[in-house]
Amino acid sequence: MRAVVAVELDADAVRILDQPGRPARVEWIRARSIEDVCAAIRGMAVRGAPLLGVTAGFALALVSRSSRARTGPAVLRELERAGAALRASRPTAVNIEWAVGRVLRAAGSGGGGLEHIRAAVEREAEAIAREDEASCRAIGSFGAPLVPRGANILTHCNTGALATWGIGTALGVIARAHADGAHVHVWVDETRPVLQGARLTAWELQRLGIPMTLIADSAAGSLMARGVVDLVIVGADRIAANGDVANKVGTYPLAILARHHGLPLYVAAPVSTLDPGTPSGAGIVVEERPPEEVGSALGVRMAPEGTNVANPAFDVTPSRLITAIVSDHGIARPPYARSLKRLMAGAAA
Amino acid sequence: MRAVVAVELDADAVRILDQPGRPARVEWIRARSIEDVCAAIRGMAVRGAPLLGVTAGFALALVSRSSRARTGPAVLRELERAGAALRASRPTAVNIEWAVGRVLRAAGSGGGGLEHIRAAVEREAEAIAREDEASCRAIGSFGAPLVPRGANILTHCNTGALATWGIGTALGVIARAHADGAHVHVWVDETRPVLQGARLTAWELQRLGIPMTLIADSAAGSLMARGVVDLVIVGADRIAANGDVANKVGTYPLAILARHHGLPLYVAAPVSTLDPGTPSGAGIVVEERPPEEVGSALGVRMAPEGTNVANPAFDVTPSRLITAIVSDHGIARPPYARSLKRLMAGAAA
Repeated sequence: MRAVVAVELDADAVRILDQPGRPARVEWIRARSIEDVCAAIRGMAVRGAPLLGVTAGFALALVSRSSRARTGPAVLRELERAGAALRASRPTAVNIEWAVGRVLRAAGSGGGGLEHIRAAVEREAEAIAREDEASCRAIGSFGAPLVPRGANILTHCNTGALATWGIGTALGVIARAHADGAHVHVWVDETRPVLQGARLTAWELQRLGIPMTLIADSAAGSLMARGVVDLVIVGADRIAANGDVANKVGTYPLAILARHHGLPLYVAAPVSTLDPGTPSGAGIVVEERPPEEVGSALGVRMAPEGTNVANPAFDVTPSRLITAIVSDHGIARPPYARSLKRLMAGAAA
Repeated sequence: MRAVVAVELDADAVRILDQPGRPARVEWIRARSIEDVCAAIRGMAVRGAPLLGVTAGFALALVSRSSRARTGPAVLRELERAGAALRASRPTAVNIEWAVGRVLRAAGSGGGGLEHIRAAVEREAEAIAREDEASCRAIGSFGAPLVPRGANILTHCNTGALATWGIGTALGVIARAHADGAHVHVWVDETRPVLQGARLTAWELQRLGIPMTLIADSAAGSLMARGVVDLVIVGADRIAANGDVANKVGTYPLAILARHHGLPLYVAAPVSTLDPGTPSGAGIVVEERPPEEVGSALGVRMAPEGTNVANPAFDVTPSRLITAIVSDHGIARPPYARSLKRLMAGAAA
């Protein structure tokens, strides 16, 4: 049900699946130092919010394992330096921040002896990974019953084993429904400009043996009009307290199209994606990505040199367009302010 | 106001601007025989329905000029063979069919003498080009007043001097509004899978000095939500009697997005695009293009080999989503069955 384990902690390295710049080429990076891991993160060999958190945890475990420090305080200083480097490698990735904080707190609590710190770091890094795996599994279990037998499912971007340490979020729901014998077929948006759908989701679905068809993003509308889409399911980068969802650019138009055609739109994400400090989507700042991503594709120039480009990485879908949010703690439905608070309370309990 | 004259009839060749596979590279093809012209059409060096018609006319003029036939019937046979070759070079392009028929009828009417035929062919080919130029000019004049001063205009695909023998249809309206001092800014959809927006429209707008910003197709929705789009204008491949419009895939989702955000959607096309024999969009068969266009971009493989692809070239926008149809004979507004009939009558008169 899991297409691949994209990041693993080996004895002397973090093993990272180099997310194929061109698909069907599976290559592994052996990152033997914190510098190697940071380079892999910067170069987008590894991506996906949850997977970045897991990678950061593994990187700190590697640092504590391979450290030549002879005292607890010395290894703690090394871990802090490594944590700062990881944070700087992708400043907008909150999961790196979160995982680094979690591992450093575990390292700093308790005894302070060298072996104690090492064991605590390993334990915490492993826990982050296992928890993400379990969280994906739970999302899949809650979400699969929403998928009718024989459904044509439309999805966007990549939310699978190349973005998490488990079966994925939206793709996890699809994988679980498929494994349960739902006989689904998936329409995969290619997801311009970075083509995560064409490069990554298509690859994962093929490995899982799930029937799929790749489309240009702008073909989704006419497929819905032809009646060959039954539901839309996507992931989330951040969910505001009122249920507004920031996700890969292209999610918002899909939500409007789904509503226009009377189709359900599901968002699948762990409760850790909920941001109770942000009241609504209006408070979410959308990252502008480099113009080259739109002017080119995989390094091939498409637009004339010097073309002015706008490249918002995300868009914000208002909660009124969302049928349900499938989390690892259950399903939230409108009104979201209340249902999401209940899920958060469950998470805290 | 016209970015370029993309096809010209020289003394001994049809000169065709090789529509850049990669942009910012302007190269001309000298097509000295009917075989050369057909190869350019097949290879998409020349595209755009009206421009294909003009090219076919020029190609027949070239045949009659360079023919070594010594009698009228002999040159007529050559012209008929050339017409068949042109039709076969792109069977779905009705404008080729139409232009060939028109030139052959002109050649066949009247005297039958060699010089008479040659003159008639030249005259008719030239007329087709001039009429398309005038038709674009008229569309621009009718459409420009619909564009408010300082408007942010969103457009899709390429509908300019690289698709017509004039300033274009939708792009002609934009060019005319700009020339009239409307101070517009254009959001250019890159238009996957063939990227006519990124490769061709961006190039034309730069040549015309019209401020523009290129975007991924799926960014149009969030731009509308941010309030930075004032209107959408697109071309048309075919317009049914009830005003339903077949156009480049991605037009239909734009129409739904425009309606959702309360923005006008204008379609700009000559009355020759109207098809009174097709009662509604339900009768329009949508061409499925090769899967490689989606799996790749400009020849670079994006999706894993063997990925299943759907690649509808067009979609159909129901007339209820269209604010107005701007033609060379005036503007049609709902109810279209009546207003389009009136425009057609004007065209026939």
